[in-house]
Amino acid sequence: MKIARCTDGGTPFWALVDSEAGTLREIGGVFADWGPALTRAIAAGRPKEGQAALPLQGAARQLAGVRLLAPVEPVNRVVVAGANYAKHLAGDFGLKSPSQPIAFLKAYGALIGANDPIRYPPLTSELDHEVELVVVLGDAPVDLENPLAAVLGYTVGNDVSARDLQRSGPAGIGMDLFAAKSQDRSTGVGPWIVTRDEFPAGSPQLRLSLKVNGQTRQDSTTAEMTWDVAQLLRFVEQRSSFAAGDVMFTGSPAGVGQGTGLYLNPGDLVEATVEGIGTISNVVGPKPGA
Amino acid sequence: MKIARCTDGGTPFWALVDSEAGTLREIGGVFADWGPALTRAIAAGRPKEGQAALPLQGAARQLAGVRLLAPVEPVNRVVVAGANYAKHLAGDFGLKSPSQPIAFLKAYGALIGANDPIRYPPLTSELDHEVELVVVLGDAPVDLENPLAAVLGYTVGNDVSARDLQRSGPAGIGMDLFAAKSQDRSTGVGPWIVTRDEFPAGSPQLRLSLKVNGQTRQDSTTAEMTWDVAQLLRFVEQRSSFAAGDVMFTGSPAGVGQGTGLYLNPGDLVEATVEGIGTISNVVGPKPGA
Repeated sequence: MKIARCTDGGTPFWALVDSEAGTLREIGGVFADWGPALTRAIAAGRPKEGQAALPLQGAARQLAGVRLLAPVEPVNRVVVAGANYAKHLAGDFGLKSPSQPIAFLKAYGALIGANDPIRYPPLTSELDHEVELVVVLGDAPVDLENPLAAVLGYTVGNDVSARDLQRSGPAGIGMDLFAAKSQDRSTGVGPWIVTRDEFPAGSPQLRLSLKVNGQTRQDSTTAEMTWDVAQLLRFVEQRSSFAAGDVMFTGSPAGVGQGTGLYLNPGDLVEATVEGIGTISNVVGPKPGA
Repeated sequence: MKIARCTDGGTPFWALVDSEAGTLREIGGVFADWGPALTRAIAAGRPKEGQAALPLQGAARQLAGVRLLAPVEPVNRVVVAGANYAKHLAGDFGLKSPSQPIAFLKAYGALIGANDPIRYPPLTSELDHEVELVVVLGDAPVDLENPLAAVLGYTVGNDVSARDLQRSGPAGIGMDLFAAKSQDRSTGVGPWIVTRDEFPAGSPQLRLSLKVNGQTRQDSTTAEMTWDVAQLLRFVEQRSSFAAGDVMFTGSPAGVGQGTGLYLNPGDLVEATVEGIGTISNVVGPKPGA
């Protein structure tokens, strides 16, 4: 099933999406009201029962009539687990694959929905793209022996990064990942969550790709991750525990501007796709003062 | 005035504290309902009018009858701006003072109140303390020309850090500040917010100190900051904007275990104090499995 967070101009709401019919039905309440129950039903192999128990309300509405938001509530956190594709690290940053992942937090205010403009941040002139598989936690705590049981599903992320700011961090401390990746209204997430029961068991092995103005820039598969989804969840949970509704980015494959020199420019159409989930399409906004 | 966030076992609430009388009165609603108005009254030089307009409700209650929580709501973010005391960097980490600060986000779940136990995290054996001045934003957006106008007040933080995990970050990427500083229930914040009108104009110059079992380990002044509060607020706001209710840690002076080798142990009483605000007293909990 597909679950979106959306707005028709008023208070954001969750919805069960029928993408073939182009309709949706509102799910009542906040994620905490229904997310854990649905996630447990999926973990128990009973996704249809979980879907039937969703507190749907109101009539079916047109998908085209709502704005899709990032499928995360403001009270949740956005974890980014990176350094997870060896070719990206070696080719784009000249770094060896490390002995363990790195995780950090992204500001909620950085998130945009599947069709929102990417704000061009004022301090950068090297704005870059990163298609990523994004994991949506539906239950907590994460069981270290079976981390995937806490996963509601997956969505697509474009972890837009200001590379010059990323390099501006103090020597001996490291990359400035906050300045690079928490810029207001820059990170696309969506278009919806596809629940875990729609994928084979285990950590997902899905093609992920990104186009800029129709040209393919990134094209890989999550099978190339150094650490799979279960390993990343365990790594993060051991350091700082997840809550239901939190999301986790899982790193980006090679092909970004940091390696190619092809950074994003105002007006660029950026399309990030993960197999079996969908595509987010965001246009880069104007440079400030331009 | 002093403003605390507390609980008597039920839903957390905000309160106006009379610390001399040992009483408090509940402030109705969430921070967004009253924080910006109070902050604007203080910025306009009318703190008493701002106080009089607070939506107080119910009778006065005993301060001793409530548990003090970190004065931050779960929807807000915890920004840590570090690398801000040259002696700490040079003496404790062997680093030169950088040309700009570094900022990152701390998980909300890391926060504890003024008298809560510090959870000893499972993966570390080098648990360290860091007394810090913590800025509470009361209004948004932050005006880059006058950042202090958005400040409601200040509180005390103990940015407890797992140093061995801090050093475990991948080469070329940097310190693992997430693993070091987002450990569940480890970072003391409180006991309350003291509003900005109680301090001289400008970025505060306050003595800050930390004792472990009565022995002084850190003793400095915020006047030694490389970047003062206004400069740190501007640095962060330019990269990722604040919301009302967000808090910002401002770095810690020399004297931490990273430099002295004196790390925290189970049972240690840690008292972090900032002049004019108060003291947070947290006892280190047992090592997992001990």
